[in-house]
Amino acid sequence: MAIVIQDEKNCHNKLKIMNNEMKNKVEEANSVATERILKSIPILVDVKPAIEVLPNMKRNLILHAGPPIEWKRMCGPMKGAIVATIIFEGLAYDWDEAVKLIEHNDIVFSPNNEHDAVGPMAGIISPSMPVLVVKNEKYGNTCYGRIVEQKVQYGVFNKLAINSELKFWSETLAPALRKALRKTKGINLNSIMARSLHMGDELHNRSVAGTHLFANAILPYLIEVLDKGELVKIMKYFSNNEIFFLCTSMAACKAMMKAAEDIECSTIVTVMARNGVDFGIKVSGLGDRWFVGQAHMIDGTYLPGYKREDANPDMGDSAIIETAGIGGFVLANSPAIMSLIGGSARDLIKHTNDMREITVTLNERFSIPILDFQGIPTGIDIRKVMKTGILPVIDSAIAHKKAGVGMIGAGLVNPPLEVFMQALHTFNQKYKV
Amino acid sequence: MAIVIQDEKNCHNKLKIMNNEMKNKVEEANSVATERILKSIPILVDVKPAIEVLPNMKRNLILHAGPPIEWKRMCGPMKGAIVATIIFEGLAYDWDEAVKLIEHNDIVFSPNNEHDAVGPMAGIISPSMPVLVVKNEKYGNTCYGRIVEQKVQYGVFNKLAINSELKFWSETLAPALRKALRKTKGINLNSIMARSLHMGDELHNRSVAGTHLFANAILPYLIEVLDKGELVKIMKYFSNNEIFFLCTSMAACKAMMKAAEDIECSTIVTVMARNGVDFGIKVSGLGDRWFVGQAHMIDGTYLPGYKREDANPDMGDSAIIETAGIGGFVLANSPAIMSLIGGSARDLIKHTNDMREITVTLNERFSIPILDFQGIPTGIDIRKVMKTGILPVIDSAIAHKKAGVGMIGAGLVNPPLEVFMQALHTFNQKYKV
Repeated sequence: MAIVIQDEKNCHNKLKIMNNEMKNKVEEANSVATERILKSIPILVDVKPAIEVLPNMKRNLILHAGPPIEWKRMCGPMKGAIVATIIFEGLAYDWDEAVKLIEHNDIVFSPNNEHDAVGPMAGIISPSMPVLVVKNEKYGNTCYGRIVEQKVQYGVFNKLAINSELKFWSETLAPALRKALRKTKGINLNSIMARSLHMGDELHNRSVAGTHLFANAILPYLIEVLDKGELVKIMKYFSNNEIFFLCTSMAACKAMMKAAEDIECSTIVTVMARNGVDFGIKVSGLGDRWFVGQAHMIDGTYLPGYKREDANPDMGDSAIIETAGIGGFVLANSPAIMSLIGGSARDLIKHTNDMREITVTLNERFSIPILDFQGIPTGIDIRKVMKTGILPVIDSAIAHKKAGVGMIGAGLVNPPLEVFMQALHTFNQKYKV
Repeated sequence: MAIVIQDEKNCHNKLKIMNNEMKNKVEEANSVATERILKSIPILVDVKPAIEVLPNMKRNLILHAGPPIEWKRMCGPMKGAIVATIIFEGLAYDWDEAVKLIEHNDIVFSPNNEHDAVGPMAGIISPSMPVLVVKNEKYGNTCYGRIVEQKVQYGVFNKLAINSELKFWSETLAPALRKALRKTKGINLNSIMARSLHMGDELHNRSVAGTHLFANAILPYLIEVLDKGELVKIMKYFSNNEIFFLCTSMAACKAMMKAAEDIECSTIVTVMARNGVDFGIKVSGLGDRWFVGQAHMIDGTYLPGYKREDANPDMGDSAIIETAGIGGFVLANSPAIMSLIGGSARDLIKHTNDMREITVTLNERFSIPILDFQGIPTGIDIRKVMKTGILPVIDSAIAHKKAGVGMIGAGLVNPPLEVFMQALHTFNQKYKV
């Protein structure tokens, strides 16, 4: 099989041949990796403060979306979200105090993905922030998801945002979910995700059905543990925040993809994550190493008053959704998403068909009715990306580039080609292709 | 404009010309009729026993789906549903007693549609049975919907079915909804219907999103009026009966279509209804008169163990959904419905496009994302049906032809062409075309 290895200067100048023995090894490894994705059973089992559950979480640690990045290189909305979270933790009163703490090296930063966690947009997780705990019942691994909200994750750091988003989550919603979950054997997220995908969700920018189905699934237990006033508050929250289920499906996808990590010889992508400056991927057969390139601008539509020049580049761990074959990979299921991101129905189906070209299998657990119930394209193969030049399609929200403003639009974006190129180069070196 | 008038012997043997003056009158009338459909605002305001609210309801009256029919000509499942309902009313203990009552002429039958009501499948409404009360806020008319359930409406008449369906409705669900609705200003059904159509429902055979959205809309009021045990029971009912919202949208469509009745010179169909033997339509410019032909067999898929020979012909007032431009007219919105009715995605889109050929406008309040948010095809014009030979597509469940068996499948069906032919013939006579 011929594989095109592209370097930074010229995308088509080297051709290497993988011999049949190696080719078979890779395909076997990829089929192990994808089987682990397909057979995963993510169960929402608890909601707990990060410090109690995340591996290597520390009191002075702030986690963020995407690959590693130092404070100075961070984008505006990530800085805003970090300052908001430091204020939420009670470590500072305002921007200046928070920045002073950071500049004195009193705060350590680390990517969520290095602690089995994922967070939307800036994705900031702090020690006392409750996280969703999702156990992969099939393979035993556990992953963690940060709440999705409307303000702080986009870099808004005022008191109102901290109260309405982070405090509501940690003091009201998270404890309610926790109490309810303890009455259950956990909530199977596969069935909610599968049904949502037949109800117009692509489960990244649109989680309307997912949120209603989730709310109704946990409702009997919420009724058991809450008084009526609390119950009304929580259920109205779900109705008014129909993107809620995204954090649940992100944690589920992370739990699925974590199970596919570290398969020797596998060329399957297990992480795609962006910090608003850099886009990073990890590959199953290449261990913990990040392959990093520049995060792209998002091609989308803007809320009134905003334009492309206001936008921050691509940001968030939410691309774990696409890494698992959902989101931008199943746009064909979600024509209603066009009211948010623009485009035409024909484009949506084309994107889903394109994703078949760079993946190794179809996951029949999640299907696409409009394509006659075809399974979702799953298991991004770095070789196929390089061979076809087709990049994964990610369906994402757009943050304003300045700290403090918030969400300004939504659209589609691709990873930079260079991350796949670096990864394949490293793969070929490691495995002496 | 040329209109083809087809008679029973030869479908293309007469051609009549409508002069321009009449043509303009008809088009003006049709635009008044369809404006009334488009601008209707159906609000669910109450749940009350039929005897208290239905016009001309009487203690010895049993209402049924479709056009008028006498006991002897009724199909098996309608007879079964009537017997079940007579037992539910406490007028008889079993089949034989109920039939004796009927044969002694102690029971009078009448179509739901002649009492501003609609019922799914056999559609039997009895005096003490609670009905949904839907007020058209824009035009002031009020219509009524029978509960949709899984057994009695398909002709099952055993004690278990009567208890689990009719008694549960009248003793538990209806009183709960009634108490909750009294805490509201009514529930606007347009917004739930519009959103459901973006979530994979076509709102006839698939009301999954509608049921969850409705449940979450009424939930805060249910919390207020129910104790926790009752609340769990009601909310679990919605989760386990995702077809529930059909009865709500049927009553809404009836309220919309009622507003379009009796527009002089209009050729718009205002009722399509089937009693399992006959298919009847009414036309806005032709008053109360039914145009009746033979109900067709449904082309669909069957539950394991059943086949076409077991099926009863087309039955139910639920085609009021299609009369309003939803259901079979918006199959393009509901590719997931194929898991129930079969077919391919291409067919679904073709059906929706075909329905544009026989309707006079697009209702933008309800839209079709996959067709780039085109409005739904609305206002069936009997002239267009006869001119094109394209028949309305109705998405329907299939009942076993014998009383007592129940639902055996689902699929698509058309009205008989002759009802449109009769109607147009009558129109031409009345208006001296």
